[in-house]
Amino acid sequence: MREVLAALDARYDPALAESWDAVGLVCGDPDEPVGRVLFAVDPTTAVVDEVVATGADLLVTHHPLLLTPVHGVPGDDPKGRLVHRLIRAGAGLFVAHTNADRAPDSGVNDALATVLGLTGTVPLEPSTVDPRAGLGRVGELAEPRTLRAFAERVAAVLPATAGGVRVAGDPEREVRRVAVCGGSGGSLFASAAAAGADVLLTSDLRHHPVSEALEAGGPALCDVAHFASEWPWLPVAAEVLHRDLSGRVEVAVSRRRTDPWTWHEGSGGIPAGHSAG
Amino acid sequence: MREVLAALDARYDPALAESWDAVGLVCGDPDEPVGRVLFAVDPTTAVVDEVVATGADLLVTHHPLLLTPVHGVPGDDPKGRLVHRLIRAGAGLFVAHTNADRAPDSGVNDALATVLGLTGTVPLEPSTVDPRAGLGRVGELAEPRTLRAFAERVAAVLPATAGGVRVAGDPEREVRRVAVCGGSGGSLFASAAAAGADVLLTSDLRHHPVSEALEAGGPALCDVAHFASEWPWLPVAAEVLHRDLSGRVEVAVSRRRTDPWTWHEGSGGIPAGHSAG
Amino acid sequence: MREVLAALDARYDPALAESWDAVGLVCGDPDEPVGRVLFAVDPTTAVVDEVVATGADLLVTHHPLLLTPVHGVPGDDPKGRLVHRLIRAGAGLFVAHTNADRAPDSGVNDALATVLGLTGTVPLEPSTVDPRAGLGRVGELAEPRTLRAFAERVAAVLPATAGGVRVAGDPEREVRRVAVCGGSGGSLFASAAAAGADVLLTSDLRHHPVSEALEAGGPALCDVAHFASEWPWLPVAAEVLHRDLSGRVEVAVSRRRTDPWTWHEGSGGIPAGHSAG
Amino acid sequence: MREVLAALDARYDPALAESWDAVGLVCGDPDEPVGRVLFAVDPTTAVVDEVVATGADLLVTHHPLLLTPVHGVPGDDPKGRLVHRLIRAGAGLFVAHTNADRAPDSGVNDALATVLGLTGTVPLEPSTVDPRAGLGRVGELAEPRTLRAFAERVAAVLPATAGGVRVAGDPEREVRRVAVCGGSGGSLFASAAAAGADVLLTSDLRHHPVSEALEAGGPALCDVAHFASEWPWLPVAAEVLHRDLSGRVEVAVSRRRTDPWTWHEGSGGIPAGHSAG
Amino acid sequence: MREVLAALDARYDPALAESWDAVGLVCGDPDEPVGRVLFAVDPTTAVVDEVVATGADLLVTHHPLLLTPVHGVPGDDPKGRLVHRLIRAGAGLFVAHTNADRAPDSGVNDALATVLGLTGTVPLEPSTVDPRAGLGRVGELAEPRTLRAFAERVAAVLPATAGGVRVAGDPEREVRRVAVCGGSGGSLFASAAAAGADVLLTSDLRHHPVSEALEAGGPALCDVAHFASEWPWLPVAAEVLHRDLSGRVEVAVSRRRTDPWTWHEGSGGIPAGHSAG
Amino acid sequence: MREVLAALDARYDPALAESWDAVGLVCGDPDEPVGRVLFAVDPTTAVVDEVVATGADLLVTHHPLLLTPVHGVPGDDPKGRLVHRLIRAGAGLFVAHTNADRAPDSGVNDALATVLGLTGTVPLEPSTVDPRAGLGRVGELAEPRTLRAFAERVAAVLPATAGGVRVAGDPEREVRRVAVCGGSGGSLFASAAAAGADVLLTSDLRHHPVSEALEAGGPALCDVAHFASEWPWLPVAAEVLHRDLSGRVEVAVSRRRTDPWTWHEGSGGIPAGHSAG
Repeated sequence: MREVLAALDARYDPALAESWDAVGLVCGDPDEPVGRVLFAVDPTTAVVDEVVATGADLLVTHHPLLLTPVHGVPGDDPKGRLVHRLIRAGAGLFVAHTNADRAPDSGVNDALATVLGLTGTVPLEPSTVDPRAGLGRVGELAEPRTLRAFAERVAAVLPATAGGVRVAGDPEREVRRVAVCGGSGGSLFASAAAAGADVLLTSDLRHHPVSEALEAGGPALCDVAHFASEWPWLPVAAEVLHRDLSGRVEVAVSRRRTDPWTWHEGSGGIPAGHSAG
Repeated sequence: MREVLAALDARYDPALAESWDAVGLVCGDPDEPVGRVLFAVDPTTAVVDEVVATGADLLVTHHPLLLTPVHGVPGDDPKGRLVHRLIRAGAGLFVAHTNADRAPDSGVNDALATVLGLTGTVPLEPSTVDPRAGLGRVGELAEPRTLRAFAERVAAVLPATAGGVRVAGDPEREVRRVAVCGGSGGSLFASAAAAGADVLLTSDLRHHPVSEALEAGGPALCDVAHFASEWPWLPVAAEVLHRDLSGRVEVAVSRRRTDPWTWHEGSGGIPAGHSAG
Repeated sequence: MREVLAALDARYDPALAESWDAVGLVCGDPDEPVGRVLFAVDPTTAVVDEVVATGADLLVTHHPLLLTPVHGVPGDDPKGRLVHRLIRAGAGLFVAHTNADRAPDSGVNDALATVLGLTGTVPLEPSTVDPRAGLGRVGELAEPRTLRAFAERVAAVLPATAGGVRVAGDPEREVRRVAVCGGSGGSLFASAAAAGADVLLTSDLRHHPVSEALEAGGPALCDVAHFASEWPWLPVAAEVLHRDLSGRVEVAVSRRRTDPWTWHEGSGGIPAGHSAG
Repeated sequence: MREVLAALDARYDPALAESWDAVGLVCGDPDEPVGRVLFAVDPTTAVVDEVVATGADLLVTHHPLLLTPVHGVPGDDPKGRLVHRLIRAGAGLFVAHTNADRAPDSGVNDALATVLGLTGTVPLEPSTVDPRAGLGRVGELAEPRTLRAFAERVAAVLPATAGGVRVAGDPEREVRRVAVCGGSGGSLFASAAAAGADVLLTSDLRHHPVSEALEAGGPALCDVAHFASEWPWLPVAAEVLHRDLSGRVEVAVSRRRTDPWTWHEGSGGIPAGHSAG
Repeated sequence: MREVLAALDARYDPALAESWDAVGLVCGDPDEPVGRVLFAVDPTTAVVDEVVATGADLLVTHHPLLLTPVHGVPGDDPKGRLVHRLIRAGAGLFVAHTNADRAPDSGVNDALATVLGLTGTVPLEPSTVDPRAGLGRVGELAEPRTLRAFAERVAAVLPATAGGVRVAGDPEREVRRVAVCGGSGGSLFASAAAAGADVLLTSDLRHHPVSEALEAGGPALCDVAHFASEWPWLPVAAEVLHRDLSGRVEVAVSRRRTDPWTWHEGSGGIPAGHSAG
Repeated sequence: MREVLAALDARYDPALAESWDAVGLVCGDPDEPVGRVLFAVDPTTAVVDEVVATGADLLVTHHPLLLTPVHGVPGDDPKGRLVHRLIRAGAGLFVAHTNADRAPDSGVNDALATVLGLTGTVPLEPSTVDPRAGLGRVGELAEPRTLRAFAERVAAVLPATAGGVRVAGDPEREVRRVAVCGGSGGSLFASAAAAGADVLLTSDLRHHPVSEALEAGGPALCDVAHFASEWPWLPVAAEVLHRDLSGRVEVAVSRRRTDPWTWHEGSGGIPAGHSAG
């Protein structure tokens, strides 16, 4: 396992992680051998079921299991239960989170930019240490599209989720320059505007920042499932690990959709507007 | 205007507001007369257009214009521009925000509970001062429904929005006890579970809290547009003001949908799951 | 107005302001034309009366109207009322505060040093960015005077105020090197001592710091009205704006004395000293 | 000395002092006898000269010598030098500061109210523990006067100082109810207004709070020397100590005026107002 | 295991623990059966060896394994390795720390007081909730002894450690009233003095507090190994658990001495004192 | 005295002290002559007795008298009493604390390293300003010894104290590279490990850090009395002052042992280990 961890750290340098983040090995013994590595966005019960069922020796997830630090991993706590199951199954858990977001080339944001067909991609907020690393990415579509056509393409190339794609902006607006941020990227709106983006695609957008952004003018907004925005990284990370270790470990991407939403109900509700007196 | 403000403060006691909130009169002169009051969720450009077009003397919104305090209201700032337009039009702006959320009977959460048909409604987190006031509400449906049927009803009774309704949970789960929180109520999940709710309906839910909630078990989750969850309060507030002033002012509910999302693209994207090596 | 604001920002760079300060445009629309600009120390009711009476399009003050940030500018608040009056009169309000204190050449402290006849003037606490900018000034009188003669000159060249001039030190002490700080400059005593000043002239001095300064030795102290110490900047700023815009706007200095003290009662009270037992 | 300290603590309960204050014995040995006690506002060099010259065994001051706590009292520091001189002279130093401000009956504020002829005096901000104790005092003049006549009386009954008395308000305003606060009492303006005071007399008032107070309306303001506002306490405290100890110690009030200002220059300066262009 | 945990929580109420503490279940599944419980002061490698060797199902320690919270329990970290070993051995780890210190009757401090033969024992700093609970204990010896004789008894009744017993005070001082605090109790010196104790016995005492305590006068000090001061609790806790569960689980006290010091070298070093010039 | 203070400041630069420290002159007048200087670790009553008895004019201690700053030095406080006695005896007190710890060549840690026979000594945590200065020291023994032999040498070369020397580690471990830190140096364990030390010698070590250090592996630990670890500096400092001033002052090292522990009781107590049920 030590060799696998070194290969992952080389791609996703832990020094790139935010100070509040929790990356690296969560459980598992670096001295034990690893034959099979499974990649997933979230370390959920369903994903651990898959680890056990497929005999994986190491689970690599984007999201930390223990972002809030703990004084114990008791078996009657949902997260502690997963630690017990992994340790008993002899499987490790490794997290590459904001370091994978920021990493150049094979990171989360480059993977997202690639599936959207962006070129000339650079970080929205470059790292002061390595200008190829940093938060978000901004790049160009091969040719301009309407915002509507862009959104249709987003829906087509990202994994299907219950929530789908929400768009704020004029459907006929021309989109050429696209900013993206896997995960919760609402705070990058000002950077996207400064970078001349026509649209910012990210997830977990809330009413107030979106409302203020529209009032201020600037890029259109495209909101997708958090899971969907980060999923494109999984096959990339699996592929590079396989290659970096010259095929000495098997890799697989989890088949579980860890987006938490089950379904979506299109609202055809009552029209707003009412007057009295 | 002074009389109108007093009537609003009597219904929506400013002492109920959070310490960080910004409620009360934002602009306008309490000594001027008021003939017509317009109610809206957000003080946006479109809503101020409506104020000017309809000659309203006072705009009452749920959301503050200046939640982050300011050192000025210059005309080249989106919010400052609205202040200039309102002052020049002789119209005031009044905000009832977390005080309206918490207020008993004619507040935001009671209005939401009422349109969903809940009975026996009590606050999820009662105020220590007045047990009828507080955060969120929990009540009973007239008769149990499946989660799917509940979600269909939600979609039918709330204003139509681009994002519609997202649901996390088993569609066949029986729902009888319902917790609601207008606006961003994700932090009330534990209270909803403690209150024995089968589902929590609120808005602005993000990936991580929803994911953790599902792993921990407990209520299903139903996410609607922030705007849609608070809109039911507008006709209620308009009605009670009209009645409290014995019809001496005209009231109206804004016809603008201030939900910022323009449209929704159902995602039919690629299936998740991939394996290499 | 945009051109006027740019000229003011060029003279009084907002980047020189303290982090807690509130400089720039408070209200008014940069797209409207400006024919006449009025300069004053404080944005008080009397000064706004003068704006309205003289038809000024822009009021430039040294002190901020909204130093403590606000959630609204309601008409029943003294400051909100001024914002309403200015907006309705079509007049803007612009503040140059600690940036004007620090600015080189045509700033508040250089203006004060000039009326006192100082030469070879440099900042007491130079800015790390621009050594000609910074807090306070220190310079030399053309020829040495007694402290008494210096104080008489101060009283003669600054605007008359109720409080006049208070001096701590030996009236016969020779004064050659003079430190000044417009506004509340008590915290600059140590810098003035380190700069070899014979006297520090500033305002708003309080008992304890003055008492400790005298016990420690060092410069004499000269306390004038806050208003009086900053007033000399008004004609300077008016003049440079007029010149910077090649006379395309009219400028005027307010005739209102905004020092808040109405009159002074020389105390001839009882002698101290008493003994019992 | 122990008996004297106990008598002072009984009048000026240290529990009434602010948490940041530094009251009680600064130097001196409680086991040594005390024949003569000197009272002064400030522990300055001149006052310590008087202690040595008069052979006093204990100096009682209102202001702390070491309000900012120290790691040493070296002889080359102005304050350390006083400690050395007192210890070598066998004299102690005792401080009664905010506890004397707050104390009922024989405290600083009651003494000030008494010399101004106020009756029916109560604290402006009463202590929650003892309603007779607290910050400031408010009471009634025997009969109404104009503000000008009130200021003349203030100048007559307080010790003469260089700065004299400054007044903000209409000289013809009728004054009946008077709020006072010895020392720096600018923060009590709102309490004075709430108490219905026609004028607040205190010291160390600065431009901004006074300016804002005038814009908001409310009491007139009367500013005297910090020293002058607290001096009336000295004969009171000396008297009560003498009486409390049945005359077993001699008491005296220092003859030094510790107001730091040496003289005042009435400003006849240039008129404000200027216009160009 | 659930039943065992409930019995421990009943004796050592987690609500008594400090807010910074980390008590309760660290690992292990409450749904599994428990046949044998091992008690130890510290969860060290040697103690976990004993858990594995003796087939214990639950380890109860006084000190937390993860007092500083963690983002993972990786196998290459000393603490993570212990978690892996315990989980693989099917054994749980439970911590009763400051709740056991404070608990009445069968807590750490009562156990220490009992082995020293104290009677009439009460908390040094009683809990506001339960006056029988709290920090430290103070009680009376059956008859007075010299401090030397007291120290000899301490050495005789506590487990042998390399560091032994250090005493500060006159060996002939009479000791009757004894304050104790298991673990690091240096901060209780003032409470011990206030309680009239002749000696305070605790551990981990450092130079400066001891030095200041001696200068101030008050109780003598007796410093023992941290481990030794808490060990007496182990047989007590084992016994009460055995009894509370009516003998349904086997209990044992660890035979490992987890005091970290290996040996002690009596210093016969050079005499202090030296003079030059 | 001024010349003596200058010589001490030159050797022990106050700029090297920690920000929280309290170094320099505590009392005494720099203008008075100094004939005799006494050096001690702690400014205790016994040491001040020695100052008075030997007629020393200046006491130089390593530990501050007033580390916690004070508002006074009253004679009924243990520390205030010492200030009174020193001032009346005409003696000053000077402290060189963390500046003496960090100082190169003639500082506390170099003195400790020298008596232990270390060579090639460098700071464990070098100062960024002067690489020869810094926290702790690490160097090499002339030839390797067992840990037991090293501890015996420690006991032989440091002053005798009640507590002696405690060692954690295998007595047969070979020791060649030695890290030392006079005073409380437990926080330097990681630096000592990183520097490749076989043992860290320091004082005031507590149970938890020692226990964790042993579990993590790394250097052995050797704990001596705080006083003993710093005493070797006294003759060094006395000698260099004598030399720096060309013999113009007499110097002496205090003969008082200020280690607070009176005696040590070897514990032969009961064996640990117990089992029931």
